[in-house]
Amino acid sequence: MPTSVPTSVPTTARQSTATKGRRTREAILARAVDLACRLGLGGLTIGGLAAEVGLSKSGMYAHFGSKEALQLAVLDAAEREFTAAVITPALRAARGEPRVLALVDGWLACGRERMPGGCVFVKASTELDEQAGPVRDRLREQHLDLRRVIARIVEGGITEHQLLPDTDPDRFAGDLHAVMLGYYHAHRLLADPQAEPHARAAVAALLDAVRSTEGTRP
Amino acid sequence: MPTSVPTSVPTTARQSTATKGRRTREAILARAVDLACRLGLGGLTIGGLAAEVGLSKSGMYAHFGSKEALQLAVLDAAEREFTAAVITPALRAARGEPRVLALVDGWLACGRERMPGGCVFVKASTELDEQAGPVRDRLREQHLDLRRVIARIVEGGITEHQLLPDTDPDRFAGDLHAVMLGYYHAHRLLADPQAEPHARAAVAALLDAVRSTEGTRP
Repeated sequence: MPTSVPTSVPTTARQSTATKGRRTREAILARAVDLACRLGLGGLTIGGLAAEVGLSKSGMYAHFGSKEALQLAVLDAAEREFTAAVITPALRAARGEPRVLALVDGWLACGRERMPGGCVFVKASTELDEQAGPVRDRLREQHLDLRRVIARIVEGGITEHQLLPDTDPDRFAGDLHAVMLGYYHAHRLLADPQAEPHARAAVAALLDAVRSTEGTRP
Repeated sequence: MPTSVPTSVPTTARQSTATKGRRTREAILARAVDLACRLGLGGLTIGGLAAEVGLSKSGMYAHFGSKEALQLAVLDAAEREFTAAVITPALRAARGEPRVLALVDGWLACGRERMPGGCVFVKASTELDEQAGPVRDRLREQHLDLRRVIARIVEGGITEHQLLPDTDPDRFAGDLHAVMLGYYHAHRLLADPQAEPHARAAVAALLDAVRSTEGTRP
């Protein structure tokens, strides 16, 4: 089943109802992600979201069941957004260093353009860092997945002989994530006009440190 | 006037009252910082703090006047804690690279040991990043002050010919802050056992990139 809104006419009433239900849920979730960006995951309530989208509270419970289920659905929706905006385009770039730089391009754009509210993942990370439970577990798993995606991109660069064979992909992934957290902080809280050039220079320095001279040979 | 609790007996009743008031305020603020670490600055209320310390709400208003004044006082108290735990010890180390490493030692210890709750500055940065007003302004100024402190430490390293003369102190400060944000994230949310060694390796890489060979000559 496609996850985007289908353009074809459903062939049965049952499909039509299912499609409508899914579209409604997706529309609610998009608003919920925006709300969570502004208020934090903890500030997102079934009642508040119902008021925001003009539905009844009982209707919202029918869609999500509980606040915790809503928070999990918001994290999953935000992950799909991030994957579509940042990861998928990066994976279309050539393997190795171009793919690292494409990832950084998309990620910086994501931090630059997402106004107002900021990034639900950055906010939730500090909000939930010690609130044990399924929501924190999901958030942690999502970040570990992101680390693995970055590490695989780095491994591709090693395979292509662009990066040194002893490069630690997981360490590189952590270092890159740190640069992006620093960018987010400098761009949003400090409104530092050098935030983006500094982040790009920091990524270039990370790559300089692991670049193989072998890959540049003819 | 000393800012720590005086050990001598005050000589007048008026001093005694002033001292008692200051000590009460300091004790309340210490609890308020702890609460803000756990709940965020926005979650810290006059009523909640009154209940926590066992004072009346009107008594709390007498001490702080408003929620905003309380938030500002909490940021200032947290800054004094950070200065005493991290900055002041670092400034006792030899100029240049030893001072950078002492700063990192204290900062890592601060992130490692402050349990439960985490760092009020990291939490408030994402919480307030677009909530315009005096509290956000203070938080931004505190972070800019920290940047300036780090930049001055780097300048000391340049003066001592340990670091290259074209080192950009402000960029180094931003890069170092990014490493610490990455450490905080990896240590707290991910519970990554490599968080601290990776952060130390990242700082070493930052220093490697700007180290002068001149300073190592006999």
